[in-house]
Amino acid sequence: MTALSSQPYKGTRDYYPAEKRVQNYIFSMWRRVSEQYGYEEYGTPLLEPLEVYAAKSGQEIVNDQTYTFMDRGDRQVAIRPEMTPSVSRLVAGKRQEMAYPARLYSIANFMRYERPQRGREREFWQLNVDLFGVDDVRADAEIISMGNDLLRAFGATSEMYEIKVNNRKVIQQMMSGYLGLDTAQSEQMMKLFDRKNKIDAADFRDQALGIFGESGGQEGLSKIAALLSAKTINDLPAEVLGCEAMAEVRELFTILINSGITSAKFDITLMRGLDYYTGTVFEFFDTDPENNRSLFGGGRYDGLVGLFGAEPISAVGFAPGLTTTELFLASHKLLPVFHSTTEVYLVVLEGGEAAASKLARDLRAEGVKTELDITNRKTDKQIKTALKKDIPFIIFVGAEEAESQLYPFKVTASTEEKTLSFERIVSTIKDRRIKRESDIDDLFV
Amino acid sequence: MTALSSQPYKGTRDYYPAEKRVQNYIFSMWRRVSEQYGYEEYGTPLLEPLEVYAAKSGQEIVNDQTYTFMDRGDRQVAIRPEMTPSVSRLVAGKRQEMAYPARLYSIANFMRYERPQRGREREFWQLNVDLFGVDDVRADAEIISMGNDLLRAFGATSEMYEIKVNNRKVIQQMMSGYLGLDTAQSEQMMKLFDRKNKIDAADFRDQALGIFGESGGQEGLSKIAALLSAKTINDLPAEVLGCEAMAEVRELFTILINSGITSAKFDITLMRGLDYYTGTVFEFFDTDPENNRSLFGGGRYDGLVGLFGAEPISAVGFAPGLTTTELFLASHKLLPVFHSTTEVYLVVLEGGEAAASKLARDLRAEGVKTELDITNRKTDKQIKTALKKDIPFIIFVGAEEAESQLYPFKVTASTEEKTLSFERIVSTIKDRRIKRESDIDDLFV
Repeated sequence: MTALSSQPYKGTRDYYPAEKRVQNYIFSMWRRVSEQYGYEEYGTPLLEPLEVYAAKSGQEIVNDQTYTFMDRGDRQVAIRPEMTPSVSRLVAGKRQEMAYPARLYSIANFMRYERPQRGREREFWQLNVDLFGVDDVRADAEIISMGNDLLRAFGATSEMYEIKVNNRKVIQQMMSGYLGLDTAQSEQMMKLFDRKNKIDAADFRDQALGIFGESGGQEGLSKIAALLSAKTINDLPAEVLGCEAMAEVRELFTILINSGITSAKFDITLMRGLDYYTGTVFEFFDTDPENNRSLFGGGRYDGLVGLFGAEPISAVGFAPGLTTTELFLASHKLLPVFHSTTEVYLVVLEGGEAAASKLARDLRAEGVKTELDITNRKTDKQIKTALKKDIPFIIFVGAEEAESQLYPFKVTASTEEKTLSFERIVSTIKDRRIKRESDIDDLFV
Repeated sequence: MTALSSQPYKGTRDYYPAEKRVQNYIFSMWRRVSEQYGYEEYGTPLLEPLEVYAAKSGQEIVNDQTYTFMDRGDRQVAIRPEMTPSVSRLVAGKRQEMAYPARLYSIANFMRYERPQRGREREFWQLNVDLFGVDDVRADAEIISMGNDLLRAFGATSEMYEIKVNNRKVIQQMMSGYLGLDTAQSEQMMKLFDRKNKIDAADFRDQALGIFGESGGQEGLSKIAALLSAKTINDLPAEVLGCEAMAEVRELFTILINSGITSAKFDITLMRGLDYYTGTVFEFFDTDPENNRSLFGGGRYDGLVGLFGAEPISAVGFAPGLTTTELFLASHKLLPVFHSTTEVYLVVLEGGEAAASKLARDLRAEGVKTELDITNRKTDKQIKTALKKDIPFIIFVGAEEAESQLYPFKVTASTEEKTLSFERIVSTIKDRRIKRESDIDDLFV
């Protein structure tokens, strides 16, 4: 029989303990910031009927990117490619019973059939944060503040990222009232704006001309140029500046500035790919030229809950991804050094087996994370295992230690070694732990 | 357009915050016990090539129960129906680099296409705990001890469950040396033993006769009767008792008893469904007659890592499920009452908006989980939301409080209300939190 491959499925990752620690660190920060804003965790199934995405997620996701198949009962299902339709379904399912505003978050995995590349995987993890039931820019501001605090929690400073903000209602006014485009043309133009930074200027111009068509092309291009040259909101053309939704944008910026968020900028070219957005849209970008990418984004999507047969309810949310967060933290040297979650390794010497086994039980009962060597190997091999696993402390237990109940206690990061009683072992390990936890706490501003 | 269904996909569950709290409680206990034994967390992808399961998981899973499909690149993949093949692949992938014994755990979701029923869902969550590289019953004993501590951690006492233990090598000796069955007959007989408690005695007898065939049927039945009537290991027939693997079983029980585990019993009829087991197998059962079900099980499976082209390595593990754990805890009244993860709700009175917003930021900076009302609703509506969400504390902020910096602080579970400074609010909430965490700690024995 040919051997099976030991590689993970294309575009996905195995998380060995060393990688899992990084993942858990990021998840715990996500959890902390979400809960500090009063968001409660929920979960949804891996699979949804495909039609849930067909409704609003956009053609590209549904046609090209979903992992979709017929189940054994002939239902067309998809592995979730994103969370927003699922959480909208969840809210619709208990529309009457839930307390509003509802603040919800989840940490989950998703799949999209994409060409794997740096920062883009077929299976990916996201935090999803959503606020239901506040049809007001104060909700949008809360969500943007959370995005900001999320990066701050990891130790990021304001020059490391920028926040671009736009509004779908302003975009609509810009597309129809200012550029004079019909619905189909608007859609094409939004997609073109979305790709603006990925194509060169000539390509952008050619495609824009194609959308405007024969007649209005040159005038359209100069109007776009006027848009792009606006340095502040007030430089925008009057047709855009004067629209009703612009008042919302101004109010949003006022709240953000009052909350101390100064790195947000209005950007008329920010579109956000998904079809369901209806108001504020925003995106956080890494300012590092080496890692100049979108970190995460979100926005207002008022129409989704209503699709599931429930009375409509307004919603706003955002969703940072694990891999982009990891790349951001790595590029700004914000990732701490992680050690094993195991705190102590018990090396068993001759005649110490029973005593070591009891010591392991006693340490665990005190909450100490204890690995007991049960291999009967030579001492140096046992020590080598502890070091390779990066476990901070080693205790030696042989016949003598069983008798005296005093144990050689070695700190693996140094040459330090002392002989301690059970009580002192427990207190030494716990002291170190409290220090470590407060180190992480200090990162949260 | 017809409304989409707000129901989750058949056989799966939505976890609203109230259900997610229960899930998180169980996950955190799993995590705690696993880490206290020195196990480190890992993760694997949702999808694996189908052939990974075809090798060893058993026909039923592969043919009838997997969610399997061709991906867009014509690879036959399956949503993982269990973890053991994946973790074996993971170990094989870094066979040389890893430190042994390797102690690994994961908490993950799986899918099987089964008829949904109480305690059985199409998407289900499991803890998987595996120890690689110790070819000795001491490893089996450690794994069984962990299963035992897992139930104890939730507050279970020894009369609530029993542990049945068997050994695949003993089973093989019993099937061939004692019952005189060939390989094909042995396989059928194992499946029959596995169903023993689900069918009636006459049915069992008829099917057993069918397996023995014309000649040896009656003698075979009386041999089975002799097996089943054995009350202790020593009552077993000599052909079984005398086999080499029986020494392993005895040694395992000696270690278990020395570790204080007295509820384990040898049970020659315990088979465990999966094909890959090679030595010790065990299963924990609820003793409650209302919930008389298998809680979880595991065993030794030495042959899996080698399938992935790596040098073989011995392995033993077990995997409790979320839903069975939840049913067990519910039936024995071991589930605590959970409240919102949010600690305080800020009710905003007239003129208090800016002060409330600042107070929310300051509380969050202190790590207090704070929900801020941004709705401008009447006071009673805001209070109602806090109560409906089961948030333990409410703080009121209006113009007067903004001025005095003293805030009415209400305990929602009682009529208690006092006026506190910011510092007193923080310390009151933190005191309660430490108490709550130590309550949970006390559950771990």
